[in-house]
Amino acid sequence: MPQGLAVPDGLPARVRIHEVGPRDGLQNEKAIVPVEVKAEFVRRLAGAGLRTIEATSFVHPKWVPQLADAEQLMPLLRDPRVQQDLADVELPVLVPNERGLDRALEHGVGRVAVFGSATESFARANLNRTVEESLAMFAPVVARAREAGVRVRGYLSMCFGDPWEGPVPAAQVVRVGKALLDAGCEELSLGDTIGVATAGQVAVLLREFADAGVGTDRLAVHFHDTYGQALANTLEALRRGVTVVDASAGGLGGCPYARSATGNLATEDLVWMLDGLGVETGVSLDALAGVSAWMAGQLGRPSPSRVVRALRGSSDRDGRDGRDGAADA
Amino acid sequence: MPQGLAVPDGLPARVRIHEVGPRDGLQNEKAIVPVEVKAEFVRRLAGAGLRTIEATSFVHPKWVPQLADAEQLMPLLRDPRVQQDLADVELPVLVPNERGLDRALEHGVGRVAVFGSATESFARANLNRTVEESLAMFAPVVARAREAGVRVRGYLSMCFGDPWEGPVPAAQVVRVGKALLDAGCEELSLGDTIGVATAGQVAVLLREFADAGVGTDRLAVHFHDTYGQALANTLEALRRGVTVVDASAGGLGGCPYARSATGNLATEDLVWMLDGLGVETGVSLDALAGVSAWMAGQLGRPSPSRVVRALRGSSDRDGRDGRDGAADA
Repeated sequence: MPQGLAVPDGLPARVRIHEVGPRDGLQNEKAIVPVEVKAEFVRRLAGAGLRTIEATSFVHPKWVPQLADAEQLMPLLRDPRVQQDLADVELPVLVPNERGLDRALEHGVGRVAVFGSATESFARANLNRTVEESLAMFAPVVARAREAGVRVRGYLSMCFGDPWEGPVPAAQVVRVGKALLDAGCEELSLGDTIGVATAGQVAVLLREFADAGVGTDRLAVHFHDTYGQALANTLEALRRGVTVVDASAGGLGGCPYARSATGNLATEDLVWMLDGLGVETGVSLDALAGVSAWMAGQLGRPSPSRVVRALRGSSDRDGRDGRDGAADA
Repeated sequence: MPQGLAVPDGLPARVRIHEVGPRDGLQNEKAIVPVEVKAEFVRRLAGAGLRTIEATSFVHPKWVPQLADAEQLMPLLRDPRVQQDLADVELPVLVPNERGLDRALEHGVGRVAVFGSATESFARANLNRTVEESLAMFAPVVARAREAGVRVRGYLSMCFGDPWEGPVPAAQVVRVGKALLDAGCEELSLGDTIGVATAGQVAVLLREFADAGVGTDRLAVHFHDTYGQALANTLEALRRGVTVVDASAGGLGGCPYARSATGNLATEDLVWMLDGLGVETGVSLDALAGVSAWMAGQLGRPSPSRVVRALRGSSDRDGRDGRDGAADA
């Protein structure tokens, strides 16, 4: 277990983890997971102490076949035996548009998320719209959700770099992000979709949001570990006041063996750091690693999380690590 | 390539990377690499811009068979054709005791390193001595090296956690570290040998060293990525004034597929972060990733570095990463 001696100055006492494994994780896995396994996954994640678990996406099945069973999953999560375990757990779902919202509302969800893009290129690729058109599409979704008493999170992709456009100017991110918040999103999750951000950019972007009147109380961060930077970026964000961090149990969706790995930050790697910093999350690292090892078994491949690999595969870690050879030269 | 917009406050303008791949990396790889390949590895690392490359260890061959060819390697590095490429490169070698120092001096080395332990358990396991006995063993090594005009680095293992003893008190680390510096080491490398440290501990330990009169100008950090924390810990150390960081090209010595992986921080992952932060290293990330891909080929396995994998295996990374599905729900 990680070792915490003292919380460094300027870090929050508590972080809320927004667990995206069942949605963002599984949507980027090649395998199609049976819906009963997904329900069990959510239940086990809650058992490990996660209190915000993004459950699925009401996107059209033809776009994301991995989550085509959203309609089947939701009733399983409301099964009395399961629901007992999920009593104080938020289960937001992704909705791309009004039709998705309608489907979600039929299942009585209490929280939804919309997903915008900070760049024109990715808005075109992912949403088949300009940024302005996508904002116009989201406006009635957010408004109608709020009318129905449903809270809305806004995701913003490509907040740091874009594969077509390169570095993304912070002012551009702030403009689109502010539009999502002004439309009624209660929280904005800043995504480093291709994992290229470094801590310096994080500092700059958060400062620009602050200058625009958007405090860190309305911001979450969503880092990818494609280049190994997710935790360093998270540390910088915490230092700047962010207290909501997205992560994916076991690093789901970021398999290091796949060429197109998105590299989601593994929840275990995040919890290890936060435990060590003395920052509370309510999550049991051991229990969570067990859940991810179980899920990796369902997917038939090892977890990409370093912590899961280290905790679950190191029974022979007997101190030989780092051995330099005895002194008998 | 990483994207740097601004150097955050309080970070150094320049970091010196102490490259440990040929020594700490290869000593922990199962494969025995031919000595000619090792010499070529060092030459290529220098070509990528690294200026401090720990070349080998003069430990007894029976303890570290992977480096049993130290005597054969050194002449290859002094070959006129190679030496031209290494003109302004430091090539420190590890020496465990006076006999190791003698062997190193015969080869005209200009810099050596000794390796101590902050804990009794690891001193016993690694050096077959108590901490005090090991300090007594190092004293004449350091003294004689300095008499010969050779600079000495001190490694200190288990500075944060120990597999037998658990968390290691900072005061204990400072006591042993200070003894190594007082004995004549010019630089002390603080090792998180089992990779359990988190940023909070780093802050505490550096503060305790400062309180004991040891500034960060004499300290280096040596983090392992076993639990994914190395870069976050490095960021914390930089913020506290450290400017020398140990890393292993391609993450050598930390193969994620091996159970006893030590998880050396990959130099590429470090350079990615530092490039993004605007912190100069003199290293070309592209060239270095090429060297590590070449070395991985020599070892017959993929590099554990996330950056190497992402840069060398992502020609199809065409923006589909993080795709949420088009908006047609």
